[in-house]
Amino acid sequence: MGPRRPLGIAVFADEEGARFGVACAGSRIITGALAPDRARSLADADGTTVAEAMAAAGHDPAHVGPDAETLRRVGTFVELHVEQGRALDPGGAAVGVASAIWPHGRWRLDLRGRADHAGTTRLEDRDDPMLRLAEAVTAARRAAGEHDALATIGKVAVEPGGVNAIPSRVTAWLDARGPVERDVRSVVAAVGEAAGGEPEEESWTGPTAFDGGLRDRLAGLLAAPVLPTGAGHDAGILSAAGIPTAMLFVRNPTGVSHSPQEHADPGDCHRGVEALARVVEELG
Amino acid sequence: MGPRRPLGIAVFADEEGARFGVACAGSRIITGALAPDRARSLADADGTTVAEAMAAAGHDPAHVGPDAETLRRVGTFVELHVEQGRALDPGGAAVGVASAIWPHGRWRLDLRGRADHAGTTRLEDRDDPMLRLAEAVTAARRAAGEHDALATIGKVAVEPGGVNAIPSRVTAWLDARGPVERDVRSVVAAVGEAAGGEPEEESWTGPTAFDGGLRDRLAGLLAAPVLPTGAGHDAGILSAAGIPTAMLFVRNPTGVSHSPQEHADPGDCHRGVEALARVVEELG
Repeated sequence: MGPRRPLGIAVFADEEGARFGVACAGSRIITGALAPDRARSLADADGTTVAEAMAAAGHDPAHVGPDAETLRRVGTFVELHVEQGRALDPGGAAVGVASAIWPHGRWRLDLRGRADHAGTTRLEDRDDPMLRLAEAVTAARRAAGEHDALATIGKVAVEPGGVNAIPSRVTAWLDARGPVERDVRSVVAAVGEAAGGEPEEESWTGPTAFDGGLRDRLAGLLAAPVLPTGAGHDAGILSAAGIPTAMLFVRNPTGVSHSPQEHADPGDCHRGVEALARVVEELG
Repeated sequence: MGPRRPLGIAVFADEEGARFGVACAGSRIITGALAPDRARSLADADGTTVAEAMAAAGHDPAHVGPDAETLRRVGTFVELHVEQGRALDPGGAAVGVASAIWPHGRWRLDLRGRADHAGTTRLEDRDDPMLRLAEAVTAARRAAGEHDALATIGKVAVEPGGVNAIPSRVTAWLDARGPVERDVRSVVAAVGEAAGGEPEEESWTGPTAFDGGLRDRLAGLLAAPVLPTGAGHDAGILSAAGIPTAMLFVRNPTGVSHSPQEHADPGDCHRGVEALARVVEELG
């Protein structure tokens, strides 16, 4: 018996946000969570904007924007993904169903100082933003521990970046998330205080609870455990836009992710594909 | 009356070492202070070596190496430079004569950790080298203050450099100098201890005292004050190679250097040129 409903496959652009800084940019744009003008003006490390990069690749930046008609035709959205922690036990189920995505966001810290010669400027005459980066990094880890959250500074840009020059400016990006929004906000505030400036919010996604009925139906169908995740996903963006959405996770034996060492066993991957096929059959 | 001795003008390559990491590379090569094989294999941030960059620009890397015959023909070397601190008083002389260059060097800190997802890796499971960078930066400033020296971390590279990825590796460069070599070494050791690793020495220049007779002769000729500097110069490399060498400094009203704000008054620059002309006449 063929499916009663049409099936579609979606590939969203720039889920990691590695180049232009906003994760899940494609799903945020189609749902309107990311405004077209802001999307077009996002710039990479070299100052190239999304609009310029699109034009250079032969695309028309005017086409960037929400697409309600396409979304209206999506009855249910299901995303299959490797689990990114160690929530799926080696001795247990290879596939899980997502309950929720933690609230999470990205903030930019603009730490400004005064460029000066490293060999001739007395310590007391320096305005060195690298010292404030050190304070911010230390505060992020401490505050995350205090507030039962996660905080990471994984991207840093130093200007002018000379070995013998005190930096004029250090830009650092803070990733913060956790089960409770208030706690995440407390971490960001603590980092801002330590760095001596207000972190600039580049993206924010509130807590996302996936469709409860769908979650329970799929967990029952697959006899799969239900687990939350701290990682953002396009599924979370679509869910926040009101589309019934579910996620399936494939076991990650080491929990390592966003690394060349990220890994899932081929057998578990096959079980993930089988689970997705059963879900599509169930919903179709 | 024309000069009795021939005059030459030297332009040394890559005095700042901004691209390949070794300051005064040109003068170090011609004097043999930088070995040809090491010079050719120095790599920039993109992994391009000096040898590759030379070949791409139409030069033969085989020509890199010491040139004793050229150096033998240099009777006296004089370098004119903007002062890089505030040692020349606004109400006093516009031109000074160098006494010495502080011992100074550059060290690379390779801080390795484990790349992981910023949103799913528990704090206690992380091996985040950014935390050790923070320790190194803080230790560098503290140790410099304790040892009457200067220490700066002005260049940092983070891999993979994703906002949502715990870094696998942070590379940082330490610039350290001071009046006393032992104190500089103590600062470097303290930074290494804080960062949990041995700093790799990329360059080192011991204390350089310029030719005493020449210094006194020029200070008398110009009625100029005598001052040390914490900045490295090609003149220091030539002096260490046994060539009678002197430096003239032009007043820097703010002391700012290695910055777009570096500045000297045009009148003071003219006095610097006049002083150099008098010195050349005196020596010529």
